[in-house]
Amino acid sequence: MDLNADLGESFGAWTMGDDAAMLAIVSSANVACGFHAGDPAGILATLRAATGAGVRVGAHPSYRDRAGFGRRHIEMATGDLTADVAYQLAALDGLARAAGTPLAYVKPHGALYNTMAADEKVAHAVYDAMALVTPTLPVMGLAGSAGLRWAQERGIGTIAEAFVDRGYRADGTLVPRSEPGAVLHDADVAAARMVRFVTQGVMETIDGGTIELVADSVCVHGDSPAALEMARRTRLALEAAGITVAAA
Amino acid sequence: MDLNADLGESFGAWTMGDDAAMLAIVSSANVACGFHAGDPAGILATLRAATGAGVRVGAHPSYRDRAGFGRRHIEMATGDLTADVAYQLAALDGLARAAGTPLAYVKPHGALYNTMAADEKVAHAVYDAMALVTPTLPVMGLAGSAGLRWAQERGIGTIAEAFVDRGYRADGTLVPRSEPGAVLHDADVAAARMVRFVTQGVMETIDGGTIELVADSVCVHGDSPAALEMARRTRLALEAAGITVAAA
Amino acid sequence: MDLNADLGESFGAWTMGDDAAMLAIVSSANVACGFHAGDPAGILATLRAATGAGVRVGAHPSYRDRAGFGRRHIEMATGDLTADVAYQLAALDGLARAAGTPLAYVKPHGALYNTMAADEKVAHAVYDAMALVTPTLPVMGLAGSAGLRWAQERGIGTIAEAFVDRGYRADGTLVPRSEPGAVLHDADVAAARMVRFVTQGVMETIDGGTIELVADSVCVHGDSPAALEMARRTRLALEAAGITVAAA
Amino acid sequence: MDLNADLGESFGAWTMGDDAAMLAIVSSANVACGFHAGDPAGILATLRAATGAGVRVGAHPSYRDRAGFGRRHIEMATGDLTADVAYQLAALDGLARAAGTPLAYVKPHGALYNTMAADEKVAHAVYDAMALVTPTLPVMGLAGSAGLRWAQERGIGTIAEAFVDRGYRADGTLVPRSEPGAVLHDADVAAARMVRFVTQGVMETIDGGTIELVADSVCVHGDSPAALEMARRTRLALEAAGITVAAA
Repeated sequence: MDLNADLGESFGAWTMGDDAAMLAIVSSANVACGFHAGDPAGILATLRAATGAGVRVGAHPSYRDRAGFGRRHIEMATGDLTADVAYQLAALDGLARAAGTPLAYVKPHGALYNTMAADEKVAHAVYDAMALVTPTLPVMGLAGSAGLRWAQERGIGTIAEAFVDRGYRADGTLVPRSEPGAVLHDADVAAARMVRFVTQGVMETIDGGTIELVADSVCVHGDSPAALEMARRTRLALEAAGITVAAA
Repeated sequence: MDLNADLGESFGAWTMGDDAAMLAIVSSANVACGFHAGDPAGILATLRAATGAGVRVGAHPSYRDRAGFGRRHIEMATGDLTADVAYQLAALDGLARAAGTPLAYVKPHGALYNTMAADEKVAHAVYDAMALVTPTLPVMGLAGSAGLRWAQERGIGTIAEAFVDRGYRADGTLVPRSEPGAVLHDADVAAARMVRFVTQGVMETIDGGTIELVADSVCVHGDSPAALEMARRTRLALEAAGITVAAA
Repeated sequence: MDLNADLGESFGAWTMGDDAAMLAIVSSANVACGFHAGDPAGILATLRAATGAGVRVGAHPSYRDRAGFGRRHIEMATGDLTADVAYQLAALDGLARAAGTPLAYVKPHGALYNTMAADEKVAHAVYDAMALVTPTLPVMGLAGSAGLRWAQERGIGTIAEAFVDRGYRADGTLVPRSEPGAVLHDADVAAARMVRFVTQGVMETIDGGTIELVADSVCVHGDSPAALEMARRTRLALEAAGITVAAA
Repeated sequence: MDLNADLGESFGAWTMGDDAAMLAIVSSANVACGFHAGDPAGILATLRAATGAGVRVGAHPSYRDRAGFGRRHIEMATGDLTADVAYQLAALDGLARAAGTPLAYVKPHGALYNTMAADEKVAHAVYDAMALVTPTLPVMGLAGSAGLRWAQERGIGTIAEAFVDRGYRADGTLVPRSEPGAVLHDADVAAARMVRFVTQGVMETIDGGTIELVADSVCVHGDSPAALEMARRTRLALEAAGITVAAA
């Protein structure tokens, strides 16, 4: 099973997370492209570190929103969004080649990720950008989402992902961050849930039940010491259960 | 002889110059990369228009300075500068391929252009970026400058350029903008000087003399109606003198 | 009747509109605060020019969105919005005092203007900012909107405005920009409609009827030569009808 | 003796330092104004926390350089610099009043701080901004610098400061960051040097000697756990020596 995380999200003098530590845990790194986070020197350093660690690299484009860390939905013309994403993909594609590990996938960030899971126009605006700049790459998105289905319908490869630290509802959608149970805080609980998911294909839901869910990758976070610890324990628990952590 | 101009320098709701008019005059377009000017949608539109017009395309990277339009020198670590330029080159490289006309050269903008003509560390920081992302492309720079010599010394191709609207001193350097004679305002005078330069290889200087100067391209501007008119007359005058305007 | 327009919307090397021409036409200037347009040097120059022209000055805050010129709605936490607007109001308040004409009102810009006309949370986020920084100033907003009513309910003064160049629907709302009739392009038609509105209190609507509308100010635009001409003719038509153009 | 530190330097999702911890140590807070660091919500929160802690507040304006954290010198027109600083001072002035603690001084940040200590044009550009927006406030600057002398010559009050963690040369200037001894890392050594300086008026220099130096404030840093610890020990050492830590 692939473990992925967001990396390269520092900016100038500001640090976000511990990229070096995460590169020892994950098999895929979603690298910021400069619009929500990441300055060129930091992006390049992260790409080189990923190459050194043998970690697969994906581009992690966003709305243009550094002040909001890409977490705010922006209503914008789809042509402008396509160009914004294409610019970011092109920048990362070139830097990744320079760093020695070409891009393997595209995973949009934050509000863009959430919106394209359910909004067809926004999803296709992103896919249009991929068609322009990275036509052979798959998109990583929310397992079971309409966004991934729209990608498949136009012939774009998909990498479905599940979340280690997010609560699931009975319909397979994530518990919104504004509701209780949105985020799991107990590392052992999260790791155990993930082991069960990976070995049995069922995800425990917020109402105490389970759902069937298919995923190609599992997303962990490392932007706080607690998140980093959860990522570490998840990897250890998976390995203890005989699961190899590796990119596809 | 090649005629080049800066294009794609609008940003969002703000327009700079008349790209469509310039694409009918020049044979090479230096396209902004987003750090001093140019938003992705505008950059992509300019690259597509250049493709449609059969105009050669170069990347026009800058210091990160939108408020100062890249005209202010910024003292920064060379590693950061290399990464900033590499990011811009990668973005343009990908967008240019998507638009159908791969990049043919790199021409830094504004303060970065001026600084690298004479500052070895800054010049090599830019060349390091080119080596990372666009290793086969030549750099366009000031004819006779140390900056171009440093490029040649490390095996980077060069395109030396002369300026239609700038005054020259007897030593071949440009008259600084703070001094009288820095900018030529009479389109006919400028065009005649350029015809003489292209046909005879001598450039008239501010002190009434001439110098020998070798250039592969001639830079015109189009950011004002007067500049656009000067560009137009220069092209007409060159053609009237039997010079074909075309990229090398 | 007061005539107002958006000014100070240039940024760095990019010019927007003709502030000097507009200051000879309008009686109130909505001055950009730096988040959608306006750099400090340009803002200060506009404020000084307004002082010289005896034109009333208001702050024109926006979402943080230079690339979108403040025309894109951004879903953001209301506390962050309050702080963003408070920062802009404080900056303009200080610069306006320095330029010799203290702020007389606040008129939010673009998407923020539109959203607060109908979204109670966003409206109050803006009013909270005004309460923090400019507690004695009125807000300028869309005549007949809920946004102005919410201001009145909390004791904030209001300046209701009508638009010279926008089509009205029978319910008093503006025709959306995505629909035909949204923008009036014939300067004489627009000016005649405005004279009738100011002298008789009725606004002609897109369906051929009229509605009663009360406004304290009329908004003109000057961001294109055609818009500037419409503003000029509107002022001349009002004066020919015996209306004095002046801030309240 | 006054202890001052830079606060409010987080930006959006990125945290810098521990403002709450520092507010328990210092008597004066230099609050970021948004150009090198600080978003409005964070600035306002810091200003309110300073009010709650009874800490004096100063504005901490910078070159427009978020990517470089204001540490890079930018060669810019003095009129533009004056406007940039005036805008920042106005924003902070309004927010500080809203938070309940009006500004008490101005301390420029980073490269601007260093440049104005020795460059007369840049210093006066900043003082022109202060004259426009905060004409009654003093400037905080490097003890013994020409910059402070130029302020005094035009009637601006001054607060001279010494640095807890920076090495001094025999001529009273700071050891440049590129040289050994620029930064003190041993908290006890730094605290002891500062106690001697405050009680006896002599500063130990890098060459083993001492110089006489007069300062009204002492600057500590808190942007790393080690810096925070040094700040804490300095305060404790000063208090143990009978020095009261308080703003003038």
